[in-house]
Amino acid sequence: MPMKWISVLLLLQLSGHFSPGSCGKVLVWPTEYSHWINMKTILDALVQRGHEVTVLTSSASILVDPNKPSAIQFEIFPTSVTKDDFEDILMRLTSKWTYMPKYTFWTYFSKIQDNIREYFDCFQKLCKDAVLNKKLMRKLQESRFDVVLADPSGPCGRPTTLFELMRKADIWFIRTYWDFQFPRPLLPHFQFVGGLHCKPAKPLPKEMEDFVQSSGENGIVVFSLGSMVTNMTEERANVIASALAQVPQKVIWRYDGKKPDTLGPNTRLYKWIPQNDLLGHSKAKAFITHGGANGIYEAIYHGIPMVGLPMFADQPDNIAHMKTKGAAVRLDFNTISSTDLLNALKTVINDPSYKENAMKLSRIHHDQPVKPLDRAVFWIEFVMRHKGAKHLRPAALDLTWFQYHSLDVIGFLLACVASATFVITKCCLLCYQKFAKPGKKKKRE
Amino acid sequence: MPMKWISVLLLLQLSGHFSPGSCGKVLVWPTEYSHWINMKTILDALVQRGHEVTVLTSSASILVDPNKPSAIQFEIFPTSVTKDDFEDILMRLTSKWTYMPKYTFWTYFSKIQDNIREYFDCFQKLCKDAVLNKKLMRKLQESRFDVVLADPSGPCGRPTTLFELMRKADIWFIRTYWDFQFPRPLLPHFQFVGGLHCKPAKPLPKEMEDFVQSSGENGIVVFSLGSMVTNMTEERANVIASALAQVPQKVIWRYDGKKPDTLGPNTRLYKWIPQNDLLGHSKAKAFITHGGANGIYEAIYHGIPMVGLPMFADQPDNIAHMKTKGAAVRLDFNTISSTDLLNALKTVINDPSYKENAMKLSRIHHDQPVKPLDRAVFWIEFVMRHKGAKHLRPAALDLTWFQYHSLDVIGFLLACVASATFVITKCCLLCYQKFAKPGKKKKRE
Repeated sequence: MPMKWISVLLLLQLSGHFSPGSCGKVLVWPTEYSHWINMKTILDALVQRGHEVTVLTSSASILVDPNKPSAIQFEIFPTSVTKDDFEDILMRLTSKWTYMPKYTFWTYFSKIQDNIREYFDCFQKLCKDAVLNKKLMRKLQESRFDVVLADPSGPCGRPTTLFELMRKADIWFIRTYWDFQFPRPLLPHFQFVGGLHCKPAKPLPKEMEDFVQSSGENGIVVFSLGSMVTNMTEERANVIASALAQVPQKVIWRYDGKKPDTLGPNTRLYKWIPQNDLLGHSKAKAFITHGGANGIYEAIYHGIPMVGLPMFADQPDNIAHMKTKGAAVRLDFNTISSTDLLNALKTVINDPSYKENAMKLSRIHHDQPVKPLDRAVFWIEFVMRHKGAKHLRPAALDLTWFQYHSLDVIGFLLACVASATFVITKCCLLCYQKFAKPGKKKKRE
Repeated sequence: MPMKWISVLLLLQLSGHFSPGSCGKVLVWPTEYSHWINMKTILDALVQRGHEVTVLTSSASILVDPNKPSAIQFEIFPTSVTKDDFEDILMRLTSKWTYMPKYTFWTYFSKIQDNIREYFDCFQKLCKDAVLNKKLMRKLQESRFDVVLADPSGPCGRPTTLFELMRKADIWFIRTYWDFQFPRPLLPHFQFVGGLHCKPAKPLPKEMEDFVQSSGENGIVVFSLGSMVTNMTEERANVIASALAQVPQKVIWRYDGKKPDTLGPNTRLYKWIPQNDLLGHSKAKAFITHGGANGIYEAIYHGIPMVGLPMFADQPDNIAHMKTKGAAVRLDFNTISSTDLLNALKTVINDPSYKENAMKLSRIHHDQPVKPLDRAVFWIEFVMRHKGAKHLRPAALDLTWFQYHSLDVIGFLLACVASATFVITKCCLLCYQKFAKPGKKKKRE
């Protein structure tokens, strides 16, 4: 079954001493940016239910914000990688991935393979600095955690392989749901918790609310390329700004670069925006997005049609889903003209089918027997209560690759057929030599 | 994906006019005995939530009990089949199925095929008497139902095939869960609602409670072969009774036949027993069962180990599951001796692993984010609210069988290979004739 690795959180059961009803000890191995934003929602919920949550992360970690007080405990281990190095590596990868013209898959892949290698080398270094740190490992072992919540996009483990690590997981949290996914077979230990971070909109800051209200009946367009991309080339910025200048809506654009020359009076730039609160605002008409899973789910939650400018990783795939479901128009960030973007915006705002489809996805999202965040918390607590979830584990996970593909069975059957063919041929030849040859000899004689 | 047809309930959306928040109109096509007992739990819950439930059934139906007042409405259509005929056909089939020595599958099947044909002929007759009844059909159409809840073990439909009928279902209710099933891939429109009829035990009738209490520390054994089998041959009854006479427990046996000569003073016969209340009694030690899904779930719910005497249909398969999960011992009803049954009972009562495994299944069963009955009700209401559940429907259901097995793709590829082979061979032959043959000719010359 093909899996998007980028949208998975893993849950592994440890040999803790959790007794039902009591509070558990959760160890977390996170990754950065949007994955952390998403995971933190779960961790906050666990803390609120009285569990003890410890996030294991390196001194190079970007996610740790010492200014924000948090009930989550951080176990920060020293590493030779600096925060700046780490950030640079991530930025180089995403930037190259984004700005590269779209070649065929293999050309494309070969162009960024150096950056991908650099990325995984860095993660391996961080992992080694954790697991070879004897003091840290002893401390973790003595803490007797009940469960590990790990993000496999920055894999680390017990000496192991990625496959081994993922195979051991009791529950897989998939960060989508059937409002997003196409229906397909799933395994019973998959929990689809897409949109678990979504919540009703809070009021906007005064200045922003005034700007939004000034849009009148035309409403607003929200524009963000996610937590990793806050900048772009001047040329791209001007193309985009000139398109935005032509729409009757007011535009709120998350952008941290030089102010584009073509920026219209209807567009305001912000270094950071309260994206969920803007998308949940009654004046929100459209969302220009890079197609990250978090942003798409905020749009689904509030029923807002999208213009997709996918950049890297799972983003093109995410936007393809939204396009097929009739809730988004997809454009190529590197090649669009102002007219393309303008037309796309006009389409999703003025063609009522886009709003209808976005609302349909929203209705499906809100109509679940259990909310995604509650389901995630339930299964983490289940794994702690029952010391795993073995009853959901498919036996296929314990097969070797050749057993999984029935190669042992096929091999045995082929060997049987080959042996039978060999024996039958030998017998026939023998018979022929015994009976047919003398006949021929007689004829010749 | 192989499916046990016997454990499925279907949900089809009709073109009703259900508005969210209001109460819906549910049309039900049931089957008899244990399937009805199970389905009625859902119908009672729907009625309690204010929905209008109409059960469409024939005048030959066994399930309709005019003495029991019910908020469920019955639409009873006339049929030439009499109640006695119908009951006889079902009894002849199950009796032959049960008492036949276990041959290989095909011999076994050929022996009961006449009875199976008789069973399906009868269902076809009932179905025809419903769908060809113009007055009835008009009345149903005018009633504008929102949803149909159908049991596909007695299939009936628009002119259609069983496959077509099942393919149209928006939701499939599977009457098991992962406490019972082995983990395997499933489709998103499958809802596993096994054990939805289970509930905490109610107090027993005074006479029965006194008998149960008289068992002291040894406790009781509950014995029932289900709602369809209340009788057996005298020989089998004596074999079983003499085994039961030798256990220190008190035995409560649901049996409607002649009192066996070997019946011990510790065993009491009842025409009907409050099975769930007995299994939920603190004195219950073991359950001797035919392995019907309802009974097995009552045992799982209350954590009672089982001795399985599977008779027909899905029962051998059900008991095989419980045996593999270490909560049951399986015996062959037709061939067991008193010693076999006695040893099996001693094993499940005295070997603590059986109780432990039964309790483990019980804990898994009780620890679900939503109770099975609530989940069934939720999805019926979802189908009414959203006029279906198209977002869960796999595209594979709309493929023809040759598309599903990729025969069209394989065929096309094979045709390509064949054409290429043909063209290449022809070219080679041509080249050979042009260049090689003159060479040979030259040599000869």
